[in-house]
Amino acid sequence: VASEHERIAEIRARLARGVPESAGVELSIGDDAAILKAGSTGSVLSVDAQVEGVHFKREWLSLRQLGARALASALSDLAAMGSVPRAALLSIICPAELTDQELYELIDGAADAQALYGCAVVGGNLARGAQLSITTTVIGAAPNQPMTRSGTQPGDGLYVTGMLGSAAFGLELLKRGLAERAPSYAERWRVPTARIAEGLRAAEHAHAAIDVSDGLLQDLRHICAASSVGCEVDLAALPRPAEAALALELGLDLERLALSGGEDYELLIAAAHPPRGGDFTRIGTFCEASGIRLREAAGSLRTAEIAGFDHFGRDAKSSDLGV
Amino acid sequence: VASEHERIAEIRARLARGVPESAGVELSIGDDAAILKAGSTGSVLSVDAQVEGVHFKREWLSLRQLGARALASALSDLAAMGSVPRAALLSIICPAELTDQELYELIDGAADAQALYGCAVVGGNLARGAQLSITTTVIGAAPNQPMTRSGTQPGDGLYVTGMLGSAAFGLELLKRGLAERAPSYAERWRVPTARIAEGLRAAEHAHAAIDVSDGLLQDLRHICAASSVGCEVDLAALPRPAEAALALELGLDLERLALSGGEDYELLIAAAHPPRGGDFTRIGTFCEASGIRLREAAGSLRTAEIAGFDHFGRDAKSSDLGV
Repeated sequence: VASEHERIAEIRARLARGVPESAGVELSIGDDAAILKAGSTGSVLSVDAQVEGVHFKREWLSLRQLGARALASALSDLAAMGSVPRAALLSIICPAELTDQELYELIDGAADAQALYGCAVVGGNLARGAQLSITTTVIGAAPNQPMTRSGTQPGDGLYVTGMLGSAAFGLELLKRGLAERAPSYAERWRVPTARIAEGLRAAEHAHAAIDVSDGLLQDLRHICAASSVGCEVDLAALPRPAEAALALELGLDLERLALSGGEDYELLIAAAHPPRGGDFTRIGTFCEASGIRLREAAGSLRTAEIAGFDHFGRDAKSSDLGV
Repeated sequence: VASEHERIAEIRARLARGVPESAGVELSIGDDAAILKAGSTGSVLSVDAQVEGVHFKREWLSLRQLGARALASALSDLAAMGSVPRAALLSIICPAELTDQELYELIDGAADAQALYGCAVVGGNLARGAQLSITTTVIGAAPNQPMTRSGTQPGDGLYVTGMLGSAAFGLELLKRGLAERAPSYAERWRVPTARIAEGLRAAEHAHAAIDVSDGLLQDLRHICAASSVGCEVDLAALPRPAEAALALELGLDLERLALSGGEDYELLIAAAHPPRGGDFTRIGTFCEASGIRLREAAGSLRTAEIAGFDHFGRDAKSSDLGV
């Protein structure tokens, strides 16, 4: 077992890899607090927690993946604001059973994400506790006017990056011990991608945005509520896993996963026209009438049934105080 | 039980009290992330966690006190840098047994501290978990060059704010169910004071600083190590609880508590002369020879025995990645 001094030194060394110049770090790990140089833009701040047994099980991913996942899922909130990551703080609650080596693997995963996203891990906290958790605070800069959830205009298109339901599909495979049947989906759940570049491009003209952490319908509802609009979603347009045979075999409904599956960390944006680049799919249209309606492939419309998902309810996970 | 929407609305309403103008909040609770206006100085960042059963027991303090304690203990790291609080993010892991009303009491305590310290709570996260914990990230501005742990010169005086060992004395009373025998000490432990004003004044000329979270000797050791100096501490000068009779009755050694008791959140500074204002007591002198020596009232010197305290050891609590 390392002494506290050795442990901190080891963590500092592992996080020295890939510290981005752009973060403007004046003082990093090793003092009472970290210091970032004054920025020319505002600071965008968010925090996210990953709790063992609630957000993940240890058998679903490696500790290194968990470290990267913690950072990526927190950074997704910056992406949804059209913000550029600068720095992160990691607060880890460690059960006594977690070895130093395991802690370092988790840190290595954070260092992976640090290098990938240009987000310097500048500090943190280690505490004892019964249940492993990683709370990640992220700080970004806002080169454009940040995108909030409000501001959508009736007639705006609803656009989404990437694919919906693929993380939930991967999680179903992991829960059943079948990840190797379609490994890319399990991987999507394990280490999501924060859509930083897409968020930046969207912020050039989008009216509103959110990241899909709780599922399309849930998160779309937040945009509709904040913007006082409704939305019509085109079911045939939803980009979703092309795994019809496997889904059928497992009794999984890919449309349902695309509508309600969480943790994709894709971006939903409301805009008059698509952002530059080909990463966005138009999946619906905002309208004045409140509520979310689903257009079937045959053309008929039905009201979306949104399960009364509550982060503190039976399937509770967590919620931004922003939700 | 409140719905998620109601719960967030209630939390926002409770935190609307005492939001400081000075924080420059552009967007607060209610979106994917919070936004602070660009500051003219650098950002100072720190994070701290309070875990039930590790840092506190519910019978030792009210939830409202716990909310204030979480913010104050995190802000103490900003004080130690000579930094001015701007904003905080609260990440709360809540067991299912905690009622909404109890959660709101905790938030009210954070709102108390928000008003007291001029530190806007601009966001956070709520997650389910087995063990109650509050992870607080604080963001400050640095009007002066921040004080770090390094930079001490041999010959500098060692100064401390307030009293040492009083929180540890209060905690001993709480553990024994005797808080009413000397209520002010229990209160010192429950809701510490972050020494923001003193830190600001000290930063005008101090060479180094740290806050006393782990006990005088532990934290002084960090300054000595970072500054490559030693220190001679004058035992007779230590400001400590004037409760000799009660301490004797309970078998507590007030000198030992002043040397090794944690959670006072007082500031230790190294400086050529005391800061303005009468809040600092000189308790020692830095020297070239490494190590910490204690000068007895009779004049003799002995080497300080510093228990090998490890935040991950048996009496583990937590450590800044800054330690």
